[in-house]
Amino acid sequence: MKHVEIRSDIAWATPTQVVVHGLDLCEEIVGKIDFGQMAFLQWFGRLPEERELRMFNAMMVILVEHGITPSSLATRMTYAGAPEAVQAGVAAGLLGLGSVFVGSLDNAARLLQASLPDPKNVPDIDTLATEIVADYRARKEILPGIGHPFHKPIDPRAPALFKVAQETGYDGPYIRLMTAIGREAEATLKRALPVNVTGAMAAVASEMGIPWQICRGLAVAARSVGLVGHILEEMRQPIATALYLRTEHEATAHLIPDAQRQDV
Amino acid sequence: MKHVEIRSDIAWATPTQVVVHGLDLCEEIVGKIDFGQMAFLQWFGRLPEERELRMFNAMMVILVEHGITPSSLATRMTYAGAPEAVQAGVAAGLLGLGSVFVGSLDNAARLLQASLPDPKNVPDIDTLATEIVADYRARKEILPGIGHPFHKPIDPRAPALFKVAQETGYDGPYIRLMTAIGREAEATLKRALPVNVTGAMAAVASEMGIPWQICRGLAVAARSVGLVGHILEEMRQPIATALYLRTEHEATAHLIPDAQRQDV
Amino acid sequence: MKHVEIRSDIAWATPTQVVVHGLDLCEEIVGKIDFGQMAFLQWFGRLPEERELRMFNAMMVILVEHGITPSSLATRMTYAGAPEAVQAGVAAGLLGLGSVFVGSLDNAARLLQASLPDPKNVPDIDTLATEIVADYRARKEILPGIGHPFHKPIDPRAPALFKVAQETGYDGPYIRLMTAIGREAEATLKRALPVNVTGAMAAVASEMGIPWQICRGLAVAARSVGLVGHILEEMRQPIATALYLRTEHEATAHLIPDAQRQDV
Amino acid sequence: MKHVEIRSDIAWATPTQVVVHGLDLCEEIVGKIDFGQMAFLQWFGRLPEERELRMFNAMMVILVEHGITPSSLATRMTYAGAPEAVQAGVAAGLLGLGSVFVGSLDNAARLLQASLPDPKNVPDIDTLATEIVADYRARKEILPGIGHPFHKPIDPRAPALFKVAQETGYDGPYIRLMTAIGREAEATLKRALPVNVTGAMAAVASEMGIPWQICRGLAVAARSVGLVGHILEEMRQPIATALYLRTEHEATAHLIPDAQRQDV
Repeated sequence: MKHVEIRSDIAWATPTQVVVHGLDLCEEIVGKIDFGQMAFLQWFGRLPEERELRMFNAMMVILVEHGITPSSLATRMTYAGAPEAVQAGVAAGLLGLGSVFVGSLDNAARLLQASLPDPKNVPDIDTLATEIVADYRARKEILPGIGHPFHKPIDPRAPALFKVAQETGYDGPYIRLMTAIGREAEATLKRALPVNVTGAMAAVASEMGIPWQICRGLAVAARSVGLVGHILEEMRQPIATALYLRTEHEATAHLIPDAQRQDV
Repeated sequence: MKHVEIRSDIAWATPTQVVVHGLDLCEEIVGKIDFGQMAFLQWFGRLPEERELRMFNAMMVILVEHGITPSSLATRMTYAGAPEAVQAGVAAGLLGLGSVFVGSLDNAARLLQASLPDPKNVPDIDTLATEIVADYRARKEILPGIGHPFHKPIDPRAPALFKVAQETGYDGPYIRLMTAIGREAEATLKRALPVNVTGAMAAVASEMGIPWQICRGLAVAARSVGLVGHILEEMRQPIATALYLRTEHEATAHLIPDAQRQDV
Repeated sequence: MKHVEIRSDIAWATPTQVVVHGLDLCEEIVGKIDFGQMAFLQWFGRLPEERELRMFNAMMVILVEHGITPSSLATRMTYAGAPEAVQAGVAAGLLGLGSVFVGSLDNAARLLQASLPDPKNVPDIDTLATEIVADYRARKEILPGIGHPFHKPIDPRAPALFKVAQETGYDGPYIRLMTAIGREAEATLKRALPVNVTGAMAAVASEMGIPWQICRGLAVAARSVGLVGHILEEMRQPIATALYLRTEHEATAHLIPDAQRQDV
Repeated sequence: MKHVEIRSDIAWATPTQVVVHGLDLCEEIVGKIDFGQMAFLQWFGRLPEERELRMFNAMMVILVEHGITPSSLATRMTYAGAPEAVQAGVAAGLLGLGSVFVGSLDNAARLLQASLPDPKNVPDIDTLATEIVADYRARKEILPGIGHPFHKPIDPRAPALFKVAQETGYDGPYIRLMTAIGREAEATLKRALPVNVTGAMAAVASEMGIPWQICRGLAVAARSVGLVGHILEEMRQPIATALYLRTEHEATAHLIPDAQRQDV
């Protein structure tokens, strides 16, 4: 059997020292850098500059908490059955961060990065946006990153992120392209389709040079912070048991023979 | 069926506004607070004071990355099979954060908080430590939070955390008790058993008023940041496939009949 | 570093052959043994006798489907977010099979096997049951395996399992002990506490010589079959999205300022 | 908010009765049907005919155990960290059953069912196979269901499954098409590319009328049985800890400064 080398460059340790991405954990990390800087270091292998950190923090905080979602309900249901395994509750909630909710972030970032492979060599943005919208319409695919079923006509999180991008100097061609796609789609489809939070994050991530393949990971890590919050609330103010009993009752009522209905 | 009320106080939204723990997401969170503050807000329902934030960040950053562990290998193995589902890779790594690795954090924090229920009413710490060590010896249970198989004679992460605690004013009775337990155990068992990273974190969490039940959640959220880093490395420098093929080969070699060995 | 041997005895393969627990997959398993026999083979390393298989099948089928539970809801919520990752949906549902629901099976089997370590050397069952009930009452712990909040006064699954046990010759001391515990608890606590499905399964597993540590695994495997059924139904008749939207609405209604309530 | 009805038709219960897909659990299932029949009932809403059951069992048993794989290693790694949470160990192993390993089953079944939408109206199979192979070559995509890196020149599991199909009357157009695709690919690409286990399962599932979307669920349920077997072995003969320590050592050796190497 051929021997294949196995290597990891993230961290190393001796009995007296731990080093992560080249920084001494005890001397240079603990007490010196914060949680946001640490996440940046762990993912990109270096500490962020100040403006990078501010933009990065803005993206991370927006991903943490999204209310009662399928994800937070999966966490709460799992906690109700296995309160001794908090890690399983968080994991259960992460598992639904797939194509329906977080996938649009990946898709929007991929669209932007594929359409504009070199941010230093930018074609006419409006022409590009027109082509993209036409292309998606021709293939009958949904354009990622625009429109929202609840936050309309405007998803307020998009301008909030773009404001930070402006303040930190990240207002470049990807944000312009994402905005132009929304505008073009609105004009073509004759309804409100402004950039949503997903599109805004995809644009900002692209401005920061974050490859689209990594975007889902950012969302997953931030959401795990959010899901721990749902477990803490479920500990003191549970909803899972009431919700499942109610749902069982409602969902199966039509199956129960009339003669036995009174017993249930 | 009795109607039971279902309530969550974490967040609410209207089409134009999102509010998390009383703060407007777009006006007061994005661009205003960082990832560490957001985690604190999500878990404790309020923003931290400056010294709280510094101590909290020190705990969080220490939990992020622990090298090649069963947890990061589970993540990498899962990514190898389902690269399209990054969320599943992270979740798989979180699932092993149970009694063996993270459980000692819960156990140490529970021991400290049960032994010292009121940090304003502190008995003689050395007497208390002596009793605790004697009690564990009598029950033949392992004392959580002291000693380390690799980081010896001292786990360097413990003094690093305690230094931040001192600088931020969190050097109180729980840290004194944890340290006394280590000292007493060393004296009784006649070997090096200083406070390890787990014991240090448990002590600091107790100083901050964080209930022991919540400690595992902090670890899980921080580690999810770390596991995303392992997926990023696995994307560009994979080890999972080589490792499983090698392991399959080695683990089953003894079963394969001699006549067929050359074919494998 | 000391070299530790790594060995697995479950299966081996050459390019032309696959062998599982000593049986040739293509010659002796496929088309020859059924799914129940295969599960038994995979767990116990040998094929079951006929009466063993019948009793084993009876246990497995009873574990498959338990209706709308926290577990099946976690599966459906996850499927709603990640329909492309069916494996994640099943995994999410399994994660809640912890101390609250399946743990009572482990606990009942442990109680029985610890109380009756040698089924060939059986003390007076009624005396033993009296001691066990008194012991749990003294420690204020809940006796596992008896009573049910919904299936009362009798959990019909217990007599159904015990009937198969009688027909297959597995009606031995563990079933007698479990039944005696229920009877004694009823007499002491003055309310209906007959053996429930969990207690019956624990007793039957003990009769079959299945260690209590393994019982949860049987339940997890059987439930994964059930959860796939919930995904199939969610595919054609979804409930997750309606349920989460409804829950979000109800759970956060009290937070929304009156002036904005009409917008939600 | 619009009220959307929530319904599940799988099961219902009263205090004295449990009914699954129309069968009384205690009267018609326990002791009457086996684990394979129960899986069929849970997924397809009816009991299988005898020949259906034999074919179904053949598919299920082949999916149970695949040796030391990324999936079984993720399970073992998770068990090492959380032995108290067997459900989490199984779930971790399931999570990697994604596009790389099980996805080829979905893809092959989708290809067959899309190419032959009506099995009663079958075009010339060789012509169809030629078109399919040409189409995949033109799109530079990998044909699912043929060839195997280890089981070559023939994957012995394919003829084993096809033999059962012949014996049970399931040797129809999908098996002929899958075989023809392999033959055509071999002729075009000038190397051994016979139908593999995945292709054989996809063909048999298609013959049985099982929609391709459901195939992954079958694999996930069967594999959960296999993963429980790996946990049982890990309990008595562990490999996870040795494997991770060894991997940590090897993977990070290049990072450790020479002066400190002796300490590790």
